Amino acid sequence: MFQHSSKLQYPVKVDKPDPQFAMLLQQAIGGIEGEIRVAMQYFFQAMGARGDDRIRDLLMSTATEELSHIEMLGHAVALNLEGAPVSYQEESAKDPIINAILGGANPRHLLSSGLSAMPVNANGVPFDMSHVYATGNVAADMMANVAAESGGRVLATRLYNWTDDKGMQDFLSFLIARDTYHQQQWLAVIEELGGFEKNLPIPNSTPEAHEATEHSYYYLNTLTDKQAPEGRWNRGPSLDGRGEYSTRDKPEPEGQAPSLGKAREHSGAQKEQM
Amino acid sequence: MFQHSSKLQYPVKVDKPDPQFAMLLQQAIGGIEGEIRVAMQYFFQAMGARGDDRIRDLLMSTATEELSHIEMLGHAVALNLEGAPVSYQEESAKDPIINAILGGANPRHLLSSGLSAMPVNANGVPFDMSHVYATGNVAADMMANVAAESGGRVLATRLYNWTDDKGMQDFLSFLIARDTYHQQQWLAVIEELGGFEKNLPIPNSTPEAHEATEHSYYYLNTLTDKQAPEGRWNRGPSLDGRGEYSTRDKPEPEGQAPSLGKAREHSGAQKEQM
Amino acid sequence: MFQHSSKLQYPVKVDKPDPQFAMLLQQAIGGIEGEIRVAMQYFFQAMGARGDDRIRDLLMSTATEELSHIEMLGHAVALNLEGAPVSYQEESAKDPIINAILGGANPRHLLSSGLSAMPVNANGVPFDMSHVYATGNVAADMMANVAAESGGRVLATRLYNWTDDKGMQDFLSFLIARDTYHQQQWLAVIEELGGFEKNLPIPNSTPEAHEATEHSYYYLNTLTDKQAPEGRWNRGPSLDGRGEYSTRDKPEPEGQAPSLGKAREHSGAQKEQM
Amino acid sequence: MFQHSSKLQYPVKVDKPDPQFAMLLQQAIGGIEGEIRVAMQYFFQAMGARGDDRIRDLLMSTATEELSHIEMLGHAVALNLEGAPVSYQEESAKDPIINAILGGANPRHLLSSGLSAMPVNANGVPFDMSHVYATGNVAADMMANVAAESGGRVLATRLYNWTDDKGMQDFLSFLIARDTYHQQQWLAVIEELGGFEKNLPIPNSTPEAHEATEHSYYYLNTLTDKQAPEGRWNRGPSLDGRGEYSTRDKPEPEGQAPSLGKAREHSGAQKEQM
Amino acid sequence: MFQHSSKLQYPVKVDKPDPQFAMLLQQAIGGIEGEIRVAMQYFFQAMGARGDDRIRDLLMSTATEELSHIEMLGHAVALNLEGAPVSYQEESAKDPIINAILGGANPRHLLSSGLSAMPVNANGVPFDMSHVYATGNVAADMMANVAAESGGRVLATRLYNWTDDKGMQDFLSFLIARDTYHQQQWLAVIEELGGFEKNLPIPNSTPEAHEATEHSYYYLNTLTDKQAPEGRWNRGPSLDGRGEYSTRDKPEPEGQAPSLGKAREHSGAQKEQM
Amino acid sequence: MFQHSSKLQYPVKVDKPDPQFAMLLQQAIGGIEGEIRVAMQYFFQAMGARGDDRIRDLLMSTATEELSHIEMLGHAVALNLEGAPVSYQEESAKDPIINAILGGANPRHLLSSGLSAMPVNANGVPFDMSHVYATGNVAADMMANVAAESGGRVLATRLYNWTDDKGMQDFLSFLIARDTYHQQQWLAVIEELGGFEKNLPIPNSTPEAHEATEHSYYYLNTLTDKQAPEGRWNRGPSLDGRGEYSTRDKPEPEGQAPSLGKAREHSGAQKEQM
Repeated sequence: MFQHSSKLQYPVKVDKPDPQFAMLLQQAIGGIEGEIRVAMQYFFQAMGARGDDRIRDLLMSTATEELSHIEMLGHAVALNLEGAPVSYQEESAKDPIINAILGGANPRHLLSSGLSAMPVNANGVPFDMSHVYATGNVAADMMANVAAESGGRVLATRLYNWTDDKGMQDFLSFLIARDTYHQQQWLAVIEELGGFEKNLPIPNSTPEAHEATEHSYYYLNTLTDKQAPEGRWNRGPSLDGRGEYSTRDKPEPEGQAPSLGKAREHSGAQKEQM
Repeated sequence: MFQHSSKLQYPVKVDKPDPQFAMLLQQAIGGIEGEIRVAMQYFFQAMGARGDDRIRDLLMSTATEELSHIEMLGHAVALNLEGAPVSYQEESAKDPIINAILGGANPRHLLSSGLSAMPVNANGVPFDMSHVYATGNVAADMMANVAAESGGRVLATRLYNWTDDKGMQDFLSFLIARDTYHQQQWLAVIEELGGFEKNLPIPNSTPEAHEATEHSYYYLNTLTDKQAPEGRWNRGPSLDGRGEYSTRDKPEPEGQAPSLGKAREHSGAQKEQM
Repeated sequence: MFQHSSKLQYPVKVDKPDPQFAMLLQQAIGGIEGEIRVAMQYFFQAMGARGDDRIRDLLMSTATEELSHIEMLGHAVALNLEGAPVSYQEESAKDPIINAILGGANPRHLLSSGLSAMPVNANGVPFDMSHVYATGNVAADMMANVAAESGGRVLATRLYNWTDDKGMQDFLSFLIARDTYHQQQWLAVIEELGGFEKNLPIPNSTPEAHEATEHSYYYLNTLTDKQAPEGRWNRGPSLDGRGEYSTRDKPEPEGQAPSLGKAREHSGAQKEQM
Repeated sequence: MFQHSSKLQYPVKVDKPDPQFAMLLQQAIGGIEGEIRVAMQYFFQAMGARGDDRIRDLLMSTATEELSHIEMLGHAVALNLEGAPVSYQEESAKDPIINAILGGANPRHLLSSGLSAMPVNANGVPFDMSHVYATGNVAADMMANVAAESGGRVLATRLYNWTDDKGMQDFLSFLIARDTYHQQQWLAVIEELGGFEKNLPIPNSTPEAHEATEHSYYYLNTLTDKQAPEGRWNRGPSLDGRGEYSTRDKPEPEGQAPSLGKAREHSGAQKEQM
Repeated sequence: MFQHSSKLQYPVKVDKPDPQFAMLLQQAIGGIEGEIRVAMQYFFQAMGARGDDRIRDLLMSTATEELSHIEMLGHAVALNLEGAPVSYQEESAKDPIINAILGGANPRHLLSSGLSAMPVNANGVPFDMSHVYATGNVAADMMANVAAESGGRVLATRLYNWTDDKGMQDFLSFLIARDTYHQQQWLAVIEELGGFEKNLPIPNSTPEAHEATEHSYYYLNTLTDKQAPEGRWNRGPSLDGRGEYSTRDKPEPEGQAPSLGKAREHSGAQKEQM
Repeated sequence: MFQHSSKLQYPVKVDKPDPQFAMLLQQAIGGIEGEIRVAMQYFFQAMGARGDDRIRDLLMSTATEELSHIEMLGHAVALNLEGAPVSYQEESAKDPIINAILGGANPRHLLSSGLSAMPVNANGVPFDMSHVYATGNVAADMMANVAAESGGRVLATRLYNWTDDKGMQDFLSFLIARDTYHQQQWLAVIEELGGFEKNLPIPNSTPEAHEATEHSYYYLNTLTDKQAPEGRWNRGPSLDGRGEYSTRDKPEPEGQAPSLGKAREHSGAQKEQM
């Protein structure tokens, strides 16, 4: 069960409101790199977590923190929209330069939300929940979480680069720090479970009889005019300790040429296909 | 530039067509764990790859392999739909048991595609390209790729469990093997670039002055009635070698209570808000 | 069955075409506050209406009016795009200020629709029919309709504020008026059916035995650091005449701590979860 | 800032797991009538609330409660999936009747989530955040909230009707009760603000000069072969106290016949259009 | 402006209600081959039509007819849902065979719409308006319309094959007939405009200087292991009368090997990319 | 099986990078008129092709070419983003005019992709695979392909008009040429199969007994105040050689007035509907 206290997790100040930056911040709310995504991803992973209860707790606890991040970002968007023109009568709306600059703002902040945050990204596209990655396999889920936090910190870094507002910089430096930790938090779960060697391949419970292991350790070079790039991926022992990496170059197809033959009567095809 | 040869990468046989299994296989084509997703993800990552050209080649080469996986799965779906009833006149369509079993099939395989594969998942929801994760940051992209291949192998394993068709089992054992390799291929890129210690936090180019590092290494326990779970995530040196993990328990909010004050005239609010 | 007459329901004039305003008007066509939504919502509610046939007629009649509103807005968008540059050769396209202002226009009006309206919102996101709320319960549907018309009039008001074009102002003042009526039209249906007292809770046909009525009349204050706000919602008789409002403050969870235990074999989880 | 306690708001028990009912329950999680929607809707309305701070508190407090409802439903789905077959080897998977019944289950509960809840509806369609209605106008938002809670209680009632599991019935009777209250909670806000007479038309701050009030109080009967249905909507004083309802029957168009004339050169049209 | 008369365009009868067929019929309402799509496509094409006003009239008139088709299909869905069980108490809901057969029905017809039609397809996926193809180029639009009507008649044919209900067969035979006509109606517009020879390539107004015409008439055979298939497409005069078809076999790339070089500082990439 | 060679199909040069044009080019990648769509459409049509194997080959070969078009466009987008400001510190970012012009760029090129292409359209909306039209009926599929290539060439023409960059013009003139050919390639398949007379109505395998042919050849004029437009569509022999075109003017409904009667108990409706 959730509770709420009325203060924000961290102070959110805006020195000089900027409607364009409000639009950019939306990516951190409703983008695939954003906070709704991680909040919901950890929440659903927690509800489906089986096995070690510590991991369920980690997931639910961090989901709860991410909800607080949405709340801060929502306030940051609203503060950046304070004072934006809402009517053609206002002076700022008549200035062609200002008007042009506002061209880069999200018009729905004015038309639809009344100068506040929306669950959309920087293009105004609503977040959709298909981005909640939760498989029931703890290692697959941790990888998805590291990926999400990596994208999140790349985004926060780019947002930091786009503002010289001290308040926003301070707030973003906090989000950058939390993303630093969360990337490692999820990798630490892998370590706690025995590290990559024990956890790969994911799922590590797949019976070996279900795997054509002769195809499990080569890099397939499908490039017709280039040598296979050399690197860790095609030399040395495999990361799961079960094989040795190699290259299969300019591979020939091993399968058949597919053909479906004629269409059946009553199948809605043209007569010429039958 | 792409070319195509008419044979499949690996043989695809179906001993006994099964329209329900055709529906399940769709998840591996048009699901978020599926092959369209990885093909397109690696393709777009390749087109945006900056730095080491070997990684661009790896991405494009593997994107090309994944296109061949879509092709095999598309054929597998069509083979599983061979002979499915297309008209009420057919005997099988009148048998209540068979009809009931077909209840679990995708009706659009009959209505919309003429008994062949579609770019949709096992619920019939079309794949959408927002799931192409490509940030321009090589480490973030590799994590997204490991996550995608982990989800993919979990799915292939579950599909294997749901069939006793020898042809499908053989085909799925091939996909399972390739997912084994691809998980490690992308982790090997991280290793080639110096491993996690050098690559974390992602992006590792964020200036330290942009990060509130006092918030970078603690686990925040937002659970009001439980101790923080103990593990690698809150003890020992951080995985990036820059800090030491700790716990911040039952945290107090550090920020302000947000309030937006009154609504402005002409903002479309109710008078009572002004 | 529908018919069409070639004239518009109300005159639509544009004194000075404005491609940016064309983009804003799109919200009233393809936004969730827009006319496609209400036309389709009333149409589907009508087709599923059971009981009093007068309400079916009201719904179908108003759906028909809303189709005429789409038609007027579509013309308004096209008129606002008249004369917009379609080629780099045109003078206006070379002027950096004008070009910048056009930055706020929808590029797909030029690229995709040939300077005419599209079924998208002000961000260019296509309308999707999941926003057609139609439950088969007349009171729930009426509430959804009042909500839709309220959002619609808020939007029309904000659009009015953003233009000083006399033609557009006149047209929008007509839409504002019709939204005024339609809000009340749907509330009047509730009144005709006996008012809120008879219609609440919705559905009013749920057997009381299916409801844990001890939980039906308190406000749950989940805020840990604030008193419950005082108001009509937590004092006085309930609006359905069945109870008395109260507050449940700082509530304790009444349920169990959820735990799913170990994962099963063959479920695609990691061994460590089993 | 949010916190979490590890117990559920209300007990969730399942006497006899039922994978089909798990699929139906998804509508209450990820459907437009579901709990993700109301949680996020109240959360975003709270973040954009201007004016009376009590209403901001109500919104945030109830958003928090709805998050706890998602949590209970997520557990209910997982409990209903306990013991569902995950492999063809299991006896239940070979029984044609059982298999047929499972035809009505969501295959992605097996393939994608590992027998746990997903943020999708009963058709497996992911929730998308465009359904978060939040306008910045308190009355419009309250109407959207009453509509959401009405749809929610209709759904909970129908779910109750579809199960004879005592645990699920008890749980659903709790959700039904809370929806009873929340419908009235939001209507009570309207009452606290002066009732419909003061709040209509929404927004009540639109200057009367922006409204063509001669079109504000008639029902437009667009039906060519039926009399206008008679009722409160076309007789008596208007609900906002500003006018008197009437009917405009078989209306003639008042506008022009729209014509766009010829296409311009370089506009991508056919020569025949120019 | 639209009007409505209360009777259906054509009689709609159902002899024996069938909830599974109700689900299949949804494809004809909310599928990409369905009637909402063509109604809206012709409507938006009409609103953007430039040039010959007869074509605008054809489009608007046919859009109006398609709205009447939605209405008939909506009624057909509701009639097929008459008598479907709405509660576990009903006998039919307890019969495992019937229950299994209902497994193939759309659960949201029971949970969400109260036994009536929804704007979704046979998988329950809502229609989205991105499928409204309207370019402002009359020939491109006519091709899109022929494509839509072709898909529509394929679907109606398959639906006919899946029912032995006399009422539904009669109704579908009407839709099949109208699709026959509409395919030809749109091709007749091309003929009226001078036929394919005058209208190709679309748009026929593109200046020839904007086209690398040496690439305009060859079939590119990208298959590495097969001869180019021989047919009208690679021999004889081109359909636009401007060229002669040929084949370019096993083509060599003509472009450069793309490389983006190093990532810039402050771009959010990894240091190793810089 | 697919292969890849490292060079582009055709040279892609950009003389003067332009972030706004990068955004416009996205329509040709991820728009409904774009290259992902045709690549995937031809790929899925090929996988479901039944009958003449030459057509399967044509489809797969052209799908492969379209993948190469995506690759070129992806490079074109990245080249247009070269040198775009990534930080507020850069001079260009401080210039209000430049900043304003950038207002028309896609902010996610900076925030999300690291200055490279994304699978989205010019509004930033991700491509979704519902636009892959593939019915299993060869004639319907060819019509969909002609429509797609027509929309594609309209778009390429409009993009050409919007740039004066010689490199981009040369590249677009190549795409325009290939679209010229592909429109005719698919029409040539129809010709090879016997032309429209043999292929209409689509599907031509529908038994004539399934069609109410008395409704197959008239234009229905639903316009109440206009004569039916006269043209090839309502006079002369039908294009399929089976009938004669005519007009049905001001049609009367032939069907019943639909009514669903009362709602059932336990259906979740209001008591007043029962």
